[in-house]
Order: sequence, then C-alpha cells, then structure tokens
Amino acid sequence: MRKVAILGIGQTAIGEHWDKSLREIGGEAAFAAMRDASIDKVDALYVGNMLSPLIDSQNQLATFLADWIGLWRQEAVKVEAACASGAAAFRAGIMAVAAGEIDSALVVGVEKMTDKSGHDVTAALATAADADYEVEQGVSFVGLNALIMQRYMYEFGWKHADFAPFTINAHSNAMHNPFARLHEKINIDRFEKSVMVAAPVNLLDASPIGDGAAAAVIVPAEKATSMPGRPRVIMAGSASATDTIAVHSRKDPLFLDAAYQSAKHCYGIAGIKAEDIDVFELHDAFSIMSALSLEACGFAPRGQGVRLGLENEISPKGRVPICTRGGLKARGHPVGATGMYQIVEIVQQLRGECEETQVDGAKIGMAQNIGGSGATVLTHILKSE
Amino acid sequence: MRKVAILGIGQTAIGEHWDKSLREIGGEAAFAAMRDASIDKVDALYVGNMLSPLIDSQNQLATFLADWIGLWRQEAVKVEAACASGAAAFRAGIMAVAAGEIDSALVVGVEKMTDKSGHDVTAALATAADADYEVEQGVSFVGLNALIMQRYMYEFGWKHADFAPFTINAHSNAMHNPFARLHEKINIDRFEKSVMVAAPVNLLDASPIGDGAAAAVIVPAEKATSMPGRPRVIMAGSASATDTIAVHSRKDPLFLDAAYQSAKHCYGIAGIKAEDIDVFELHDAFSIMSALSLEACGFAPRGQGVRLGLENEISPKGRVPICTRGGLKARGHPVGATGMYQIVEIVQQLRGECEETQVDGAKIGMAQNIGGSGATVLTHILKSE
Repeated sequence: MRKVAILGIGQTAIGEHWDKSLREIGGEAAFAAMRDASIDKVDALYVGNMLSPLIDSQNQLATFLADWIGLWRQEAVKVEAACASGAAAFRAGIMAVAAGEIDSALVVGVEKMTDKSGHDVTAALATAADADYEVEQGVSFVGLNALIMQRYMYEFGWKHADFAPFTINAHSNAMHNPFARLHEKINIDRFEKSVMVAAPVNLLDASPIGDGAAAAVIVPAEKATSMPGRPRVIMAGSASATDTIAVHSRKDPLFLDAAYQSAKHCYGIAGIKAEDIDVFELHDAFSIMSALSLEACGFAPRGQGVRLGLENEISPKGRVPICTRGGLKARGHPVGATGMYQIVEIVQQLRGECEETQVDGAKIGMAQNIGGSGATVLTHILKSE
Repeated sequence: MRKVAILGIGQTAIGEHWDKSLREIGGEAAFAAMRDASIDKVDALYVGNMLSPLIDSQNQLATFLADWIGLWRQEAVKVEAACASGAAAFRAGIMAVAAGEIDSALVVGVEKMTDKSGHDVTAALATAADADYEVEQGVSFVGLNALIMQRYMYEFGWKHADFAPFTINAHSNAMHNPFARLHEKINIDRFEKSVMVAAPVNLLDASPIGDGAAAAVIVPAEKATSMPGRPRVIMAGSASATDTIAVHSRKDPLFLDAAYQSAKHCYGIAGIKAEDIDVFELHDAFSIMSALSLEACGFAPRGQGVRLGLENEISPKGRVPICTRGGLKARGHPVGATGMYQIVEIVQQLRGECEETQVDGAKIGMAQNIGGSGATVLTHILKSE
C-alpha cells in the first residue's frame, strides 16, 4: 500500500453550540481542513459519529454531510465504533488512499450532543455498553468506569487523590487551547472536593460531553511534499483491535487488552517502541482510563500508570506528554469526534504549532481512541519529516 | 489492488424472530458463511446495520458481534448508510482484502426490527431522510416514495396497475426461497385492491421490514481456487456514489443520479455494459424504486422502467431478471441487512443454486443497494469463472 500523509486539519471549538446545527458543525471542521490543505475537492468523505441517530434523529450522516459540504456524487462512508468512531473513520480514509482506491480523503469526526431532539445523553451513551448484559442491569457508562477504578485502587493500593495529576495536567494544557471546552485551572484541593458522580468517579475524573467536529485531509505522501513552511506529517502506523464488549467477560478488567494489542501492532508497523513516542494523545474519558492506557501501551508497568502523573512525567515537558491540548477531560469529549480531535492535535504537535504546550522537538506522535470500556481500540502513529 | 473472491455465504430466514436476540441472528448468518467457506477464523469483521442504536439500544455493533462470534482481538468495523448499510460494509471488507491489509474479511448485514426496546420503527426509518428539512415537515419514508411515485405517474402517464408486475414477480420468486419473509402468490387483482398506505403507495407496493442477517466471506481470489463442486465467484466491480439527502434538493426527483453514477462507475471497473448483466438484484423498497433503478442503470429509457415488467422481461426467464429470490418486496427488507442478502443471492445465482428461479447460465450478476431516497447507492458486480 502507498504511504499517506495528512495534508490539512480543521476543528471547531467544543461547547454547547445552540446556534449551529449538526451539519454546520461538521461543515465548519471540514472546510477548515480543506482550507488548511489548500484544496477545494476530495474524492471521498469518511465520517465518524456515534450518536446522531439517537440524539439528532439523523442517520446516513456521511451522505448528509457530503450533501452539505457540496461533495455530491462522491463516495461517503460513515463508521461507528462508539467513542472510537472518529479514529475508525480515520482508519477507513487512510485505507482507501493507501490502497490507491482514491487519491484524497476527507475525514470528519462530528457530534452534536447538547441540543437533543431524541434520546437523553446518558441513555444514548449507554448504547456503547452491552445492552443485554450490562445496561439491562442498570449500569451506566460512568458506573462501569467507577467499578473499574474502585477495583484498581483496591488491587494496587492507590487512593483517589493519586489520580489528580491527570486532571490537573489536562486542565492546565487546555488553558492554551482555544478550541477546548474548559478553560479552568484545577488543583488537588478542587479535585478532591469535586462533586461525586459514581464513587469513586467524581466530576473532575470525568470528561465533559459537547458539540464539536474535527477533520483531516489524507493524500498519498508523494502529493504532500509541496506545503510551504511546515513539515510533512505522514502516517507511520494504523491498527485496530477489539475486546469483549462487556467488562465482566474479561479475564482481567484492569487490563485494556485491545489497547495493548492495537498499540503493539501499531509499533510493529511503525518500526518503533513505546519510548520513541514524543507525544501521546490518549483516551482519558475518565481518569482511570489514563492510567490503564499508559500501562497497556507500555509506558508504565501494570498498576503503576498513576505513578507517571505523580512523578510529573505527563506534562508537555515530561517523559510521556499526554493530553497536551487538554485531552478528553478538558478539551472535551464530543464522543464520535474525539478520535479526530486527537489526530488534529498530534498533527499540531508534529508541526510545532502548540506554543505553550508544545513538546520540544516532537517528531513521533501517537493517538489512541477507545470505544466502550476498552472494547474497540484504534491506535495511530504519525511522524513529521 | 488484488482481485478478491467470495468464498462463502450465509443467511437467516427473514421474519419476526422473537426467540433470537440481535447477536444470535448476526451470529447465525456469520457462522453459516464461515461453514460455507470451510474456514473457522477471519482477520476482520465488517458489519452493516442501520437501526440497532435506535431499536435495540446497541451501538458499537461490530465489536459486539465479534465478541459473540469469538473473534476477540480482531478488527471490527461497523458501517452505516441507512438501507445501504449492508453493501457499504461489504465494500469496506472488499477494500481491506483487495488492499492487502488483511487476508480474509467476514461481512455481516444484520437488523432486528420487530422486537424493539427503543424507537418506533417508522420513526427510526425516518432517520434516513433529512431530519431538519424533510422529517420535521412530517414526511415519513413511505410518504417520500409516494410523492415520487405520484409524480412519476403524472409525468410519464402510467397508472398504478402498471407497477403490478414488480410485485407479482417478486412474490412469485420468493415462493421458492426458504429464507424469504413472504410466501404468498399475488395477482393483479390483489395488488390493486391492497390497503392504501400513502397514496399511491399501497401495502403491496411496499416491502416488509423484518429481522434477519446475511453474510459473506471475502478472500484474495488466488486463495479461492480450491472449493470443490462450484464455480469461483469473483468481484468484478464495486462503486459507491451519493446524491442530496433531501429529495426536494434534486434537479430531477425522478432520476436516481447516485444509482446512475455508481452503476456507470461499476460497469467501467468491470469492463462491461448493462446488457452484459445476467441477473440484477435491485433495491425494490417500493415498486417505484424498481422502475427508477432499471432506468438509472441503463436497462430502460427514462420513464419506461415499468414497461420491462409489463413486457414480462423481469422474471428469471426474461431479458433483465430482477428480485430472483423475492427482492425486498417479498424476501423482506431488514434494512441494514438487505445489501448483504442481495450479495448472497447473486452468489447463489452465479453458483447455479437457485433451482426454480435460477437464471440459466448466469455468469455476471449485479446488486444495487440504496440508502435513503436514492441518497447513498452502492453497486457491486460479481462474476463466476
């Protein structure tokens, strides 16, 4: 397959966009990415979205957006993998260009969650879990993460305050990201006193939902050589893996096996090791997920993911910079769009556009997007050259 | 890209499967396809589904099914394009194998519509239309097709009875398909006296929903040479195109431009013309769609699609055999599964397994799957050799 590059990126601010419709949000990111790529047409559109059927009463979203953007007649593909929908659509776009089926792909992750015509958001998000064997028992998504976090604390002897660095780092970095949902510094005292949602997960352990879209233009690498004034960002690896959908079916609910599998596969494709990664946008939907992701991807031993935060290694100046633009926690988590925000942010890092939260000399970045409680995991490694 | 072949097919009967869950239906077709292909593992799973988030409260369906089938760790991808979800997933699977990313793909189209935990089915189906500009005005999916059919009759001078052959042919063929939902002969009298749904669309113009799943195993063509006793079925073309999502945005609502574009593109890839097609499984969600599909794909001049029925050219012995296993009309239309039923039926024809409705000497078959009112259209051409 051909080597492919990311020619352009675009995003909307994440918030409650009462003044913009679903198509307008998706279009805003799409047009921004095409402007950034200096192109005005693409061969096909790939859309990542989880909740538009439920919350916006809209299916067939790829064609819906292609229509709005003006890509009539072009192929349009919507991919859904719960909160990993964005990266799943990205992988579909990469594959089509790499295979030579098309010469350019626009990928848009989009979600409008705050202005619902249909379902309640908590009920809608629960569709990522097992409807028959988890949700029927009354477990919400926060509830599942609370069970995992409680067990982790019990097994490995951590206390709730030990997770604070994940939240503090994410909020600190988001202060410098104009697209982030939350611009608010957090300290350990606020973290510990935050309102409880589902013990031990409190409000500052959980990421906020929101409306937003992020997009990228993918082309064959040889067509991406001529963009002036910035390094070329190429795809070094793309991998996807799955686990059981229900947490209770796993041998070890404290190990994200699909994250491990997809990262391992992706390292192999890219020909690198975990320690070669300069910046890692992980899927911190809940603070426990930061710890588990760091462990599954080889940055920390089992049960020791929180230590990286406590030892101040996760900031942009640390050994394993994560959530450099705010992560899901503070940039916000418009679920089906999140995977594309992560890609956009890695590209910004590799281009050196992150100012206060720039990771010095970042050449290799990884983004990992998780659907459900670790059921679908996509890992992407990008390089600047 | 590599040439790919269909190594195995499987399907469930279409009906009201109160005794089977969504995962059981999907698994039944998946296991049947793997048995037919004489394999017990695949590299990745592609799932086409439209309504599980709405009707079954289940998202992330590809991982959900991979878990049930026992494909842990494998990649799983769900594609949604309204009623074209099945063929859209099929195309994703073809692309992955053709590109060399994987060596085998299992594609499952699945839908469980009659045992709802969530939405009403009519409201759920309406999510295929434009939520803002069609559905908000109170137009249902049947309503949109009724407006198109009314206009077609007015413009081209046909009367309602002229559409009867489409329904009569589909029901006649379904009599010989054990997987079909309806086993009931129809005549012109019953067609004309059937209960009105949305004038001029009556109950016998419309296809029935249902629960069902259909599946196929895709491998590189060179690995499909050794199946004894049946011809090899290879992919000769795959193409996808889109149109505006809202019918009122089209210059001509009586021309399925995306069907035309995707068929034209597919003929080009396969190096054939419409007249080379031996059997055509078209998307007869409503009888008007049969006429428009025949016209868009080059089998009849504009406004003359119904003539093929009236001249008895659409039966298995005719010049353009369509709906040879019952079509959407009588085999049934479990929406996200339909595209895969069409593929399975074309493979059955090319293998010569259709008995009473076998098209003599069928060597080239085409399947066309439509999402929305012609908004997303996928065309696939298969050949036996």
